[in-house]
This record gives sequence, structure tokens and C-alpha cells, in this order.
Amino acid sequence: MTGKTERADRVSVTRERILTAAERLFAEHGVFAVSNRQVSEAAGQGNNAAVGYHFGTKTHLVRAIIRKHAEPVERIRERMLADMGDSADVRDWAACLVRPVTEHLAALGSPTWHARFIAQVVTDPSLRALVAEETRSSPSLRRTLEGFHQCLPELPAEVRAERGDMARQLITHMCAERERALAEGTPTPRASWHDAATGLIDALVGLWLAPVTRDS
Amino acid sequence: MTGKTERADRVSVTRERILTAAERLFAEHGVFAVSNRQVSEAAGQGNNAAVGYHFGTKTHLVRAIIRKHAEPVERIRERMLADMGDSADVRDWAACLVRPVTEHLAALGSPTWHARFIAQVVTDPSLRALVAEETRSSPSLRRTLEGFHQCLPELPAEVRAERGDMARQLITHMCAERERALAEGTPTPRASWHDAATGLIDALVGLWLAPVTRDS
Repeated sequence: MTGKTERADRVSVTRERILTAAERLFAEHGVFAVSNRQVSEAAGQGNNAAVGYHFGTKTHLVRAIIRKHAEPVERIRERMLADMGDSADVRDWAACLVRPVTEHLAALGSPTWHARFIAQVVTDPSLRALVAEETRSSPSLRRTLEGFHQCLPELPAEVRAERGDMARQLITHMCAERERALAEGTPTPRASWHDAATGLIDALVGLWLAPVTRDS
Repeated sequence: MTGKTERADRVSVTRERILTAAERLFAEHGVFAVSNRQVSEAAGQGNNAAVGYHFGTKTHLVRAIIRKHAEPVERIRERMLADMGDSADVRDWAACLVRPVTEHLAALGSPTWHARFIAQVVTDPSLRALVAEETRSSPSLRRTLEGFHQCLPELPAEVRAERGDMARQLITHMCAERERALAEGTPTPRASWHDAATGLIDALVGLWLAPVTRDS
């Protein structure tokens, strides 16, 4: 192994440690309550400026955490899309929205911090655009939303957009609620991420298929 | 008017100015990105410590904003409950969850900041307990959740709790999304808060009535 490769490996380990420490602190105390200095310390870096050196500003750090998880979620959804037959129905497309997220959380083992982190990011006025960027650039997510269009051609376009937003909000915030309950040891309505996904899919199918009332 | 009453009125005007300035700044920039000093300045207070003098810490200020809005929402829901007949169905109860919030936002006129403020508070690890306290102490909300129980006696208790959480998350975050779109001048799927509520009620009825899949 050359000296250059060794150094690259060491940098990669340090960056990974920082990302993990940041995500945990952000989930538990809030993205803005935690300083880059605290993150550097929690990541075991002697140099308190390690976050700045490796990532730049807090916004850059937040984007790096988002990307770290977006990639495996995208891969799971691509796999589900590849297995999807021509007769896919609303339930199949709802599963394609939900299961990549919950499978990824389950694969991370316990505890996880990502769901609480993302819920804060999408709600914060200065950070939410970062998630919107990642979402817009996801081919698998675009394909999934087109799937609902194919199944529900009679749904007015603005109601389809509205229910797409609702689905996104539900998945994000219900995963964060479950993750928090697991971390705090409070009861959860479902025994596993798989079962929690089933509950979300049931609800999303009902939501997408609900009749549309026309206001006068 | 006695000097004492005049002073009480002046204090009340100052407190109200601080609450309004804080809510706007929190909605637009984030609850933690804004300092008490910035709130005091935006409220036109010569004394930069005005927030501390009138409210104490930021947590106390946040609680005061929550309470200011919880009272009118509670009154609207009490009125709806009083008008509710014995034959109330799932749609009536869904309306009883949603319309008090959207009617209050509509009554505030444009622009509003409260929906974005609350969405941040319920998502923040250190502040969310404040909203949970208010929610638990609301008799009208408890009565409404019992209403769903009466309409859907066959729904397993844990699924009822889960769908109650989903309803809460949807109302909070969809109102915040609409408020943000209105503030930014981006398109919204509905023309008014009343119509946005109708879209939410349609979705919630579908969600509450969705069949429950049993995982193996």
C-alpha cells in the first residue's frame, strides 16, 4: 500500500467518524443546537476545527450526511423498480416509496439517527432546499411518482401533487417518530421497520385512493 | 384609567409585539438561527434584553407563542363539537381535527407564520415536548380522537394510535408547506385554507378507513 493510499484511507475514516458523530448529535439535540466544535470533539478529533477542514460549513456537513444515505436508498428503490411487473398497482407504488427508506433504516442496525436528522432538515427554512435538491435528482423517485399517475389517471394533477407531498411528509415524519420512540424506549405501534412500513403503505393506499371532494 | 392599568396595557402591547416578531423570524429563518436579541430589535424594543425581561428564555418565548394560538384553535374545535350530531361519521371527525387549524390560519389573514413555526417546534428534539403538553391538555382534541374510536371500533388500538399520529403529522406539515408556498409566491394545489382543509380531510378519511394488513 502506498503512503498516498494510506493517507486517503485515514481521511476517509475520519470523514466517516465525523458524519456519524454529527448525525447522532443533530438527531438528539437539534441541528442548530450543536456546534461544529462539538461534532469534532464527539468524533474524537484532537483538532476542534476538523469539521471545517473536512467539510467546510455546517450546510456542507448536512449535505454530506444527506448524500451518504440517499445513495443506498436509491439503490434499493432501483432494485424494487426492476422487479416491478407491468401490472403494478397503487399498493406496489406506495411500497416503492416507503420500503427503500425503512429497509435502509433497518439495515443500519440499532440505534439510528438518520430519520430524526432528515425530519429536522426538511422542516428548517434554511436547510430544506438541500433535501429538495436530492429528491429532484433521484431518477427512481421520479419513476415512482409517474407510477401513481399511471394507476390513477383520473386524479386531477394538483391533487396528485398534493398527495405526493402528503406521502413524503408522512414517510419522513413517521419514520422520525418511530426512531425517537425506539431511542427513548417508549412503545411503538409496530414491532419492526418492516411492519411499520406495512402500516404506512396501508395508510398511503387509502390516502391515494380517497375520493376527491370538489369545493364549490 | 389608572396608572397601573396604563402600564399593564403597555406591557401587554409590548409582549404581543415580541410574540409576533419572534414568530415571523422563527418561521423565516429557523427557531435556533434567531437570537433573543434579534427578536427584541425586530419588535422595536430599544432594550435588547426585552425578550428576557418579558418572557425569560427562548423556551418560555416558544411556549408563549404556542399558547397564544392554542386557545383560539381550542375554541373553534369546541364550537364544532357542540354542533356535532349523534350520527357523526369519520369525515365529521376528520373535519374536527383539520378545520380548527385552517380556520384559525385563515382568520389570521395573510401572511401567517404560525404553521411554519409549529412544524419546526414539533420536529426539534428539545422543543417538541412543549407542543405535546398543549396537545395532551386539550379536551376538544381528546374528544375528537375518541370520536374516531366510536366510528371505527374494529380498528386495533395500536393502529388507531398510529393513524392518529399520522393525522397530526399531516395536518402540521401540510399547513406549513402551504404557508411557505403562499409566503414565497409559489403555486399551491388549493386556492384557500378552506379548500386545503377539504383536501386534507379527503386524504384523512381514506387513511382512517384503509384496510389493515396483518404482517406474518
